[in-house]
Amino acid sequence: MKKVKAVIVGYGNIGKYVLQALQTAPDFEIVGIVRRSVAEDLPIELTPYRVVKNIKELGVVDVAILSTPSRTVEAYAKEILELGINTVDSFDIHTGISDLRKELNAIAQKYNSVSIISCGWDPGSDSIVRALLQAMAPKGLTYTNFGPGMSMGHTVAVKAVKGVKDALSMTIPTGTGIHRRMVYVELEEGASFAKVEKDIKEDDYFVHDETHVKEVDCVDSLKDMGHGVHLTRKGVSGTTQNQLFEFSMTINNPALTAQILVASARAATRQQPGAYTMIEIPVVDLLPGSREEWIGKLV
Amino acid sequence: MKKVKAVIVGYGNIGKYVLQALQTAPDFEIVGIVRRSVAEDLPIELTPYRVVKNIKELGVVDVAILSTPSRTVEAYAKEILELGINTVDSFDIHTGISDLRKELNAIAQKYNSVSIISCGWDPGSDSIVRALLQAMAPKGLTYTNFGPGMSMGHTVAVKAVKGVKDALSMTIPTGTGIHRRMVYVELEEGASFAKVEKDIKEDDYFVHDETHVKEVDCVDSLKDMGHGVHLTRKGVSGTTQNQLFEFSMTINNPALTAQILVASARAATRQQPGAYTMIEIPVVDLLPGSREEWIGKLV
Repeated sequence: MKKVKAVIVGYGNIGKYVLQALQTAPDFEIVGIVRRSVAEDLPIELTPYRVVKNIKELGVVDVAILSTPSRTVEAYAKEILELGINTVDSFDIHTGISDLRKELNAIAQKYNSVSIISCGWDPGSDSIVRALLQAMAPKGLTYTNFGPGMSMGHTVAVKAVKGVKDALSMTIPTGTGIHRRMVYVELEEGASFAKVEKDIKEDDYFVHDETHVKEVDCVDSLKDMGHGVHLTRKGVSGTTQNQLFEFSMTINNPALTAQILVASARAATRQQPGAYTMIEIPVVDLLPGSREEWIGKLV
Repeated sequence: MKKVKAVIVGYGNIGKYVLQALQTAPDFEIVGIVRRSVAEDLPIELTPYRVVKNIKELGVVDVAILSTPSRTVEAYAKEILELGINTVDSFDIHTGISDLRKELNAIAQKYNSVSIISCGWDPGSDSIVRALLQAMAPKGLTYTNFGPGMSMGHTVAVKAVKGVKDALSMTIPTGTGIHRRMVYVELEEGASFAKVEKDIKEDDYFVHDETHVKEVDCVDSLKDMGHGVHLTRKGVSGTTQNQLFEFSMTINNPALTAQILVASARAATRQQPGAYTMIEIPVVDLLPGSREEWIGKLV
């Protein structure tokens, strides 16, 4: 089997799990890791690999797995697609996906490369399930219930509040796509809990949701990377009402995101030039080896 | 929106629901129905349509929705693909899918047509879920638990047993892909229940499963087209164990099969010539209208 030459761009929480997913995949070769800092604090698991500041230092690369924050994805993707190298990312700002796809599509087509964007679990695999259920019951309602699990975006928003030393915002599903926010804060010395609580509840991230703020001694001791989804659809197939569907999962969040990034990196090598979301990719392209083999096993 | 010109081939249980799904779809035009018998016993709902014996009588057709038994799919598909008309079917003999795809692929490529095969819920939408979960957790076990619901194949097998007037075989899931068979029989006069029970339990369809046979006065009063699936996977993403996934549904069986056939008929008009299973089709192609619109709504 010809191996796919992959590079990890960014080595934070997701990047670490991408490394594990690449190491366990049968059809990938890790060409290197792109990091801002290449010498200091090199994690021990990176010692067998080339760690560079720029992807151009690495020779032939088939696909770059962008494991950087969403806000930096566009710049990295453009630069790398222009080199004729495919990219995948887990860009998760739902309202920005259409525009990102359009931007990257033009560049990818021009430079004969492929970009698959928003390859995580939501957006990502949940999007595939939502699209499939929409096709199976065209009329009806889909609800995506998240959690219980840590919300990165909300946690960052709480950390930015004055007087907060450390924070954790948990997303708790209460059904029909409505969520409760349970916020745990560790205060800086002398900070007023009442003031911090008020500021959090008035923040844009929290103002529309039921939000509870709790003061704790140590936020770190509460952190758990587990997350979940419970996605439901009740709808109509043809003229037949009350078709019921449920998809749920309980998962390690960064591990699943990383695994989906790696599967999508494989799929990127199999598409025509352009930019795609996951619902535009044949699901079988996410899997290693031949289509025929998977058709025999999975269909 | 340019309408897809569709023909229903066969008008049994599935065909009736295909008609409803086509009537409710925003982007289809029903060109006609192909039936062996065109004059006698014409169902009232077919009176607005052209009912013919051969698809060649119908002029321009984009796609033929084969609503005939699995064993007749190959012959119909070949004949229609050779006319340059796309086909979809719900061929459900799992062990024959790879061969059917290969046969039809050669013909479809030669005659510039598209065939999407095995477009039901299993094989079909369940296959997409299985492939997606395989990509999300490459190591692990998937179990597909069917029911409670009527098994067509097992029911037909029981009806063929001597002394059986009417029968119903229900599939009951007991977990980990193991199923119990609950068989309800109405006996012919003078038949021995003990003999019928023994013959059923020794039949190839039942010999490997836990099977219970019950005599009833009227099988028809027990029939319900409801069915269900509970599909689970527990597996490993990268090196992270215990990732848990579940997909379940409770549905009207022929209504869902028909809706998936219609969605696949739409997708058939969007693929390159050849034959495909559902895991080889971008999920978004199952939906009406533009990709961009669905990306905004579903991703």
